Amino acid sequence: MNYGMVLYCLGWILNFEALFLIPPAICALIYREKDGLSLVITMLICLSVGMLSLFFKPKKKRLYSREGFVVVALSWFVLSLFGALPMRISGYIPHMVDAVFEIASGFTTTGASILTDVECLPRCLLFWRSFTHWIGGMGVLVFVIAILPLAGGSDMFLMKAESPGPSVKKLVPKVKSTAFTLYAMYIVITLIQVLLLLLSRLPLYESLLTAFGTAGTGGFGYLNDSMGSLTVPQQLIITLFMILFGVNFNAYYLIYKKRFREILSMSEVIAYFSIIGAAVVLISINIHGLYANVGTAVKDAAFQVGSIITTTGYSTTDFNVWPSFSKAILVTLMFVGACAGSTGGGIKVSRVLIMSKTLGKEINYYIHPNSVRKIKVDGKQLEHTVLRATNVYICSYLFVFAASVLLVSLDNFDLETTFTAVAATLNNIGPGLSRVGPAANFSELSLMSKVVLTFDMIAGRLELFPVLILFSKGTWKK
Amino acid sequence: MNYGMVLYCLGWILNFEALFLIPPAICALIYREKDGLSLVITMLICLSVGMLSLFFKPKKKRLYSREGFVVVALSWFVLSLFGALPMRISGYIPHMVDAVFEIASGFTTTGASILTDVECLPRCLLFWRSFTHWIGGMGVLVFVIAILPLAGGSDMFLMKAESPGPSVKKLVPKVKSTAFTLYAMYIVITLIQVLLLLLSRLPLYESLLTAFGTAGTGGFGYLNDSMGSLTVPQQLIITLFMILFGVNFNAYYLIYKKRFREILSMSEVIAYFSIIGAAVVLISINIHGLYANVGTAVKDAAFQVGSIITTTGYSTTDFNVWPSFSKAILVTLMFVGACAGSTGGGIKVSRVLIMSKTLGKEINYYIHPNSVRKIKVDGKQLEHTVLRATNVYICSYLFVFAASVLLVSLDNFDLETTFTAVAATLNNIGPGLSRVGPAANFSELSLMSKVVLTFDMIAGRLELFPVLILFSKGTWKK
Repeated sequence: MNYGMVLYCLGWILNFEALFLIPPAICALIYREKDGLSLVITMLICLSVGMLSLFFKPKKKRLYSREGFVVVALSWFVLSLFGALPMRISGYIPHMVDAVFEIASGFTTTGASILTDVECLPRCLLFWRSFTHWIGGMGVLVFVIAILPLAGGSDMFLMKAESPGPSVKKLVPKVKSTAFTLYAMYIVITLIQVLLLLLSRLPLYESLLTAFGTAGTGGFGYLNDSMGSLTVPQQLIITLFMILFGVNFNAYYLIYKKRFREILSMSEVIAYFSIIGAAVVLISINIHGLYANVGTAVKDAAFQVGSIITTTGYSTTDFNVWPSFSKAILVTLMFVGACAGSTGGGIKVSRVLIMSKTLGKEINYYIHPNSVRKIKVDGKQLEHTVLRATNVYICSYLFVFAASVLLVSLDNFDLETTFTAVAATLNNIGPGLSRVGPAANFSELSLMSKVVLTFDMIAGRLELFPVLILFSKGTWKK
Repeated sequence: MNYGMVLYCLGWILNFEALFLIPPAICALIYREKDGLSLVITMLICLSVGMLSLFFKPKKKRLYSREGFVVVALSWFVLSLFGALPMRISGYIPHMVDAVFEIASGFTTTGASILTDVECLPRCLLFWRSFTHWIGGMGVLVFVIAILPLAGGSDMFLMKAESPGPSVKKLVPKVKSTAFTLYAMYIVITLIQVLLLLLSRLPLYESLLTAFGTAGTGGFGYLNDSMGSLTVPQQLIITLFMILFGVNFNAYYLIYKKRFREILSMSEVIAYFSIIGAAVVLISINIHGLYANVGTAVKDAAFQVGSIITTTGYSTTDFNVWPSFSKAILVTLMFVGACAGSTGGGIKVSRVLIMSKTLGKEINYYIHPNSVRKIKVDGKQLEHTVLRATNVYICSYLFVFAASVLLVSLDNFDLETTFTAVAATLNNIGPGLSRVGPAANFSELSLMSKVVLTFDMIAGRLELFPVLILFSKGTWKK
């Protein structure tokens, strides 16, 4: 383990965090809010710790696989810890565990909150809270890669460790250019959403915050009823963009390059839209009796489906009161998640696709034991390592899930609360059902449960392995 | 598809079912119950249909892999369908879907019941209900193999399809001898339990029924409160034997052959007892406040843990009122299940072991990408096919689970009921939680849910593939 290099990278991460704190500080200036001071203090703390660790320049600048994973995992813990300081210093979240939970929920784009009343927070802190979604959505390390000079090959390890989904394709030959392209597309699509929200007469500040939460598929809002009090056109814009940010970003690159035919062969994207379509139809049929007209039912169904499958977690209605069938569909979608290579969480549509193809192949094997059939996705044969990684991912997912449920169940809430609290954090969604449903929040849980769920949020965002590796003895050997 | 051979085998199955109906018919004679007539009528129906299909002797007597799976899957549906007739004919279960649910629950050793009051049933029908557990525990096909003359190699396919667990080892070189050995051990251990129960002053009839449910890890009782009103020594005997019947039968073969050292290297058995020990300790600590003394708490904890991990489903107390932590442990154990090669259901301890070893290997791979480490169980390297089959099993398990939850959720019960109803049937346990808890039953569910859960019971008992193959187009091609 190259400890020097790990510390050096973490130092850089803190310097970047200071940078990220500038926009909310500007927001405090504009609105003349005194609580902006807590942002400035945090900025200084980050810079001083960050700069200090840069003094110890490591001899070897190369990152190997395990250092890459350790750097990524620790970065996210460090980001959440220091990012929580403004909440703690300003006193709006008095307990540090709560503050870390809230900001980890921001960076991991979960959107689970321990705040009962968000409307009482100053605008600059709400800005910071939503801004963490936007930073976390694309990944902090990708940002670092785009700027930091690292030894050859190190960047690919970092990107692999942080990017969601079973396989990372380089869009362009160089990792650095890929990172730049991704960020450019991310910024452009976010700006389009802000523009459309402004046109629908949402003020700039609210438009920005809403777009941050949508782009990162996060879910923090600035109102206590999430998106319930927005107008119908505004809700439709958000529905559209939630679903768009759940699409594999490769698709946008192909659109940009006008390679439209290739998009049609992206089976993950097709499956993603098919699942959304089917879920909206089924839920609309199931809930239409609760609504005055079918249109509103379809609108609410589409919003909630888009919000849950992309793991955003916004809501326009309390779906906890929906019939069980609709709730069961939403819980299933919580696990399915968005496309790989998007900002969304969950198991990912591509993994579900790979799983179902493996299953089909196995059944065929039982029927014709001597046949040889390879698993193909998008016309290309899947490599053995991708298949194995998918299977192992599912296994570790189940282990982490079971362990978390057992620990959180010590709080003695009903099983629906316990189960969906873990599902909502491990899949980076936000609200669960019952006592952590869209009309409630996570404040009732014990400190230990909050620590476990904070861990789950970061483990879920990084797709388990980088975080699980921290617990292996082999990682820490010289 | 060799249809002739499939029909021929199913004919034999029905003839055997007629044979199985003799003991309950004798029971009716002893207690002079008129309802025994329904057993005799069913026997005649089975025999006439069974004999008829034997007239069409197939030309080719060989069973290939796919025919083997189809025969096994259809056998269990046919057994349940015809086995349900006594309940329907006698009028004690007026609806055929309910009757099939009850008897499928028997043969698959699930023990989930739609009966609100079992004490009103005549003794001969209760005997038949419990006897199906005992038949289903070891597997019907193993019995057929032991007796039926089949073309060389066909028998191994049948046994593989019906036996629980990731790998079937032949105890002795010939499949037929293996089947005989297994049945012999099964009968001997059952008889020991009956003897001990008689010594604890339980009458013969009750001892037999209790032993049938324990041996098959089924769970049907003859009292409305399951095992709650038995004496402490009787409850302890049942606890012990539930746990013993969840052990891989290979262990008993090794004991019989005095190869004790080999037992100590059976990592699955060691893991099984470790899990039971840990669960009993944790639950005892969690629930001891509810009990007058620690002894009773430990006794009840051990009974329920033994009952759930072996997927028996007996209960001495309503664990639905236990704290969430204890309930979460029990729900986790529902999925873990017993050892492979036992009569218990669930995912199986050996699969969980394989999963955790795969996970350890993968983490090691991330730390040292160039290292090669093979997965070993009991000192032997696992074959690639076993690993793959385990992973695919987990995938298909999750798919069947999610689909079942969605269908059952249409009944609009709470998610805890829906979720544990599927968990309890797919893992062949019996009682779930909430409205299908140990103090309730499955009668409230809709007809469609009962059909889905009947399917889940048979799919769970046969470990999914034989049943899933029925839905593949390729299976039915000439």
